[in-house]
Amino acid sequence: MNFSSKLVESAVDEMSQLPGVGKRSALRLILHLLKQPKIQTERLTQALSNLQEHITYCKSCHNISDVDICEICANPKRNKKIICVVEDIRDVMAIENTMQYKGIYHVLGGKISPMEGVGPQNLNIDSLVGKVKKEAIDELIFALSSTMEGDTTNFYIFKLLKDCDVKISTIARGIAVGDELEYADEVTLGRSIVNRVPFENSLNI
Amino acid sequence: MNFSSKLVESAVDEMSQLPGVGKRSALRLILHLLKQPKIQTERLTQALSNLQEHITYCKSCHNISDVDICEICANPKRNKKIICVVEDIRDVMAIENTMQYKGIYHVLGGKISPMEGVGPQNLNIDSLVGKVKKEAIDELIFALSSTMEGDTTNFYIFKLLKDCDVKISTIARGIAVGDELEYADEVTLGRSIVNRVPFENSLNI
Repeated sequence: MNFSSKLVESAVDEMSQLPGVGKRSALRLILHLLKQPKIQTERLTQALSNLQEHITYCKSCHNISDVDICEICANPKRNKKIICVVEDIRDVMAIENTMQYKGIYHVLGGKISPMEGVGPQNLNIDSLVGKVKKEAIDELIFALSSTMEGDTTNFYIFKLLKDCDVKISTIARGIAVGDELEYADEVTLGRSIVNRVPFENSLNI
Repeated sequence: MNFSSKLVESAVDEMSQLPGVGKRSALRLILHLLKQPKIQTERLTQALSNLQEHITYCKSCHNISDVDICEICANPKRNKKIICVVEDIRDVMAIENTMQYKGIYHVLGGKISPMEGVGPQNLNIDSLVGKVKKEAIDELIFALSSTMEGDTTNFYIFKLLKDCDVKISTIARGIAVGDELEYADEVTLGRSIVNRVPFENSLNI
């Protein structure tokens, strides 16, 4: 692309580093910003700088938080004996939205992925193992996405904890509520049959 | 959405002001930035601030440019008697890529759109009319997108210039090269028949 302006070119280059944003979309976003009052760009750059400068993580669950111990970990009504293991803040938000979970979380910050150079030492796994061993946790619920990387991470943590007296479960895989059976993939449908649940349980929601 | 962090919330709010970026995509982009080294966010915010602070427009054609008179207007090989009227820099880039045009451009900066509060006074129309009247321009080529707003803008300029001795043309609408006739919409196909060209002309490219 020939931009006729170094300023536009460098803004497009930086913007297109973001995932899912190509050069064309980057140019579209930047032309949009140029048409808006300057203050909008200032607010955006300020918010991003603030975020990068002052971001903090909960000392207990490693979720993004503005305080040392996040709202969920600090809430006396949450069951501290049940820990749900998730990848990042988006999964915490998704599970919180269901209003079905009353335990606490542990945010790993990613999944083990040799392809992307992410090993166990890059994730918050040590602190999870330490917590389970020290604090007599009752149950660990794996809620990572069901990909090769997610399964690997689950299995790695499972092996580290095999001598601990802790129940380890994983969220149910199956046909989504409202989905047609005939369009489901075979693996999902197979798992939903193997892991069938008593009918009474399905009435609880 | 409940973000558990004001910093994340404000960054998501600002990011999702961009066109085509919803709250979810904004969160995804921001979590990506947080995983990258700080320098990447700094480079992005710096590039956006620089752009907004130092952006300049060509004094002649109003295209984005780092110098007073842009490369195209300053090029002695371009025919200054033919002006192609476009909406913004993206259209200039698209036409330049064809390598079929040797005239200069005039960037309006938008289209007349009462729905979005854009009137003729918000666009670079006065300077275009001035240029045509002062500089004995041979031909004006309208290359706006063929929407209601584009057609309105074309017609508005056409009326302003009806007493001037300038040829006014518009880029050809028709079936795209490589497209099947049966899938073309009727308006386009109809126009391509009405505005058919001598067969010899189609051999020039």
